[in-house]
Amino acid sequence: MQRQKLVINGERLKTTLEQFANFGRTENNGVTRLSLSMEDIRVRNYFRLCCEELGLTVSVDDMGCMYATLAGTEDKPPILIGSHLDSVKKGGRFDGVLGVVAGLEVVRTLVENQIKPQIPITIVNFTNEEGARFEPSMMASGVLSGKFEKSAMLKKVDSEGVTFEEALKASGYEGDVENRLKEASALLELHIEQGPILEKEAFSIGVVECVVGMACYEIEVTGESDHAGTTPMNMRKDALFATNNLINEIRRRLGDLDEDLVFTIGRMNVYPSIHTVIPNKVVFTLEARHKDMEIVRAVKNFIEALPNLTSLNEGCEVKTTKLWERDTVWFEPEICQLLEKSAQSLGYSNRRMVSGAGHDAQFIASFVPTAMLFVPSINGKSHCEEELTTWEDCEKGINVLLDTVLTMLAK
Amino acid sequence: MQRQKLVINGERLKTTLEQFANFGRTENNGVTRLSLSMEDIRVRNYFRLCCEELGLTVSVDDMGCMYATLAGTEDKPPILIGSHLDSVKKGGRFDGVLGVVAGLEVVRTLVENQIKPQIPITIVNFTNEEGARFEPSMMASGVLSGKFEKSAMLKKVDSEGVTFEEALKASGYEGDVENRLKEASALLELHIEQGPILEKEAFSIGVVECVVGMACYEIEVTGESDHAGTTPMNMRKDALFATNNLINEIRRRLGDLDEDLVFTIGRMNVYPSIHTVIPNKVVFTLEARHKDMEIVRAVKNFIEALPNLTSLNEGCEVKTTKLWERDTVWFEPEICQLLEKSAQSLGYSNRRMVSGAGHDAQFIASFVPTAMLFVPSINGKSHCEEELTTWEDCEKGINVLLDTVLTMLAK
Repeated sequence: MQRQKLVINGERLKTTLEQFANFGRTENNGVTRLSLSMEDIRVRNYFRLCCEELGLTVSVDDMGCMYATLAGTEDKPPILIGSHLDSVKKGGRFDGVLGVVAGLEVVRTLVENQIKPQIPITIVNFTNEEGARFEPSMMASGVLSGKFEKSAMLKKVDSEGVTFEEALKASGYEGDVENRLKEASALLELHIEQGPILEKEAFSIGVVECVVGMACYEIEVTGESDHAGTTPMNMRKDALFATNNLINEIRRRLGDLDEDLVFTIGRMNVYPSIHTVIPNKVVFTLEARHKDMEIVRAVKNFIEALPNLTSLNEGCEVKTTKLWERDTVWFEPEICQLLEKSAQSLGYSNRRMVSGAGHDAQFIASFVPTAMLFVPSINGKSHCEEELTTWEDCEKGINVLLDTVLTMLAK
Repeated sequence: MQRQKLVINGERLKTTLEQFANFGRTENNGVTRLSLSMEDIRVRNYFRLCCEELGLTVSVDDMGCMYATLAGTEDKPPILIGSHLDSVKKGGRFDGVLGVVAGLEVVRTLVENQIKPQIPITIVNFTNEEGARFEPSMMASGVLSGKFEKSAMLKKVDSEGVTFEEALKASGYEGDVENRLKEASALLELHIEQGPILEKEAFSIGVVECVVGMACYEIEVTGESDHAGTTPMNMRKDALFATNNLINEIRRRLGDLDEDLVFTIGRMNVYPSIHTVIPNKVVFTLEARHKDMEIVRAVKNFIEALPNLTSLNEGCEVKTTKLWERDTVWFEPEICQLLEKSAQSLGYSNRRMVSGAGHDAQFIASFVPTAMLFVPSINGKSHCEEELTTWEDCEKGINVLLDTVLTMLAK
């Protein structure tokens, strides 16, 4: 017999998201809520209040992560639902906060339907996912998973010279190391896609199979800066023209590798950047992402061989430096399947996909069975005030989470 | 009967150039002598002293240009020899000063040989050729030739907020408008090449036929700045990739126009220049120079049509703005011929060439029969401390000037 589908209250969701967006709302309906800023502290207070009104127990760990738990009838590792409440400067109203509000709405729906779960349900707010005030991003989940050293993170400094440690202490959200997330039955993170695929292909739900692996390099091309008017073309060592040749080759070779490979030359600086002087140096970054680490490795091999392409270098010297890389993080296939089944049973269009961006879930996945769900970003926009996901898609995403939680509880 | 060749005193030349280089000499044997700075005032005082010791009459005009005249036996318009004593920051010991010292050495040689010219010989030092402290470059010659408004020039401000007018008054070198260069029989400007051609082709002397025409554009490419990880390649509007396509086309088309055409993309800025963000804007300059204005016009037509090359723009918008242009300035063919004959009669290897860089002579040429002579720059370097021309080539250049002056006097 098919269980009757429980769904969340769409109107309340909309009101709740708008209320959260009041903390740091910008002129153009975006949000600036840098980690541990006054706006972040206020939204945390409000989130705590919402949870306590529901009868949840709120605890805070030594990195400022908040855990609001609906007790289970049995003492088992909790099911976690969550994301982050901080934003970038002039970011959007959905990135992060949607995943936390999702937990709130799931629990609200359980509570108002007098469902007492056997397994505890914990809503989590990870501190400083964005890394917009204190680098790196995903700071707290990185510490929880042992990727980052806590002592190093405490010393990170914002643009005003304030350390993360000082900001954490001043916020009132420095909790106990004992409260850290350790064991859990699952982590479910709902997030906006931050890309154009779901909207372009008209899907409401994306079941995220992995966060793709990547490699990022800095490439430095060094030539000679001669006078633009007096140096014949065949006597130049033009670092910008050499760079142009390299970009042609990068596009040709990486474009041929796989159609799902994304690669970007995001940062580029030309020196001395004077209109009458031939550039003697260009420094640019090249990053590439793909779920198949074989393809990422092929990209790395190609990039590292760029200095050997002497036919393209116009007499310049080419140097490559790997800035960083990360392996693909695969989410728990069983949970992905549950999410997919829930979406299908609710009649929501859905597809499997990968995450090209990083999320807290990718770190937590190292010790908790984890999966992510995406909902569409209009025009793929994120980290900007224009960031938008329809209320309907937000609601659908949370309904999938709710249904999946109920399925887990029914096991 | 061949006239016996009079030549300058090479040892004295070397000593004189080194003495001039003491005014503002830098750690690495270059010179910093910004226009009307203390170093420039001191070198002017020294230059005046050298001239007065020779019995010359020194006058100064309202733009600070200095004229040191050896009287002629007849009251005819003078033959001018000169250039500028100012330098860029950390410039070289030859740029400009060589052309002034050339005048000094020519006159010293005439005086010590008791040659009393029928035509007056005037050594000239043009104020602020470099434009390194007060833009634009060639400021005083621009005013003398009516290209620039004096009142606008007086208001030009250096990086400290000092106006050109204030600096001129404080220098003690604000002279009388009546002293301005008006009529002259000729202007001869000896200068270092500031390019690699003479050295690479093993010539000692370049007879400069013209200062080449040029056009300079700013090109702005506007796309969309999406997330580098989440935006599939075929959904991007990458302003840097579009720019790369344009540069390919620029190199292909301009490269085919004429082998003497030089073109440079000197300044380029990529926005927002973050490694994880697809560039949404690239702004770059493109300048091209050639003596044939038909070719410069072809370049302009091509650049102005770049926005129409929609197959290359990757969905971005392309805008071009002309920053400036100048026509080719042809020097006086008769004087070029005299210089060439003098070089040949002295047995110096020489070639005709063009000037890709701007010089005071190009402005003065509008009202005085003018020509320029180049001597080799080692490695083509200029506007830097490594700037170097051999003493021997300096000496040869001045000997050509001396011989040409003697030929003019003998007419």
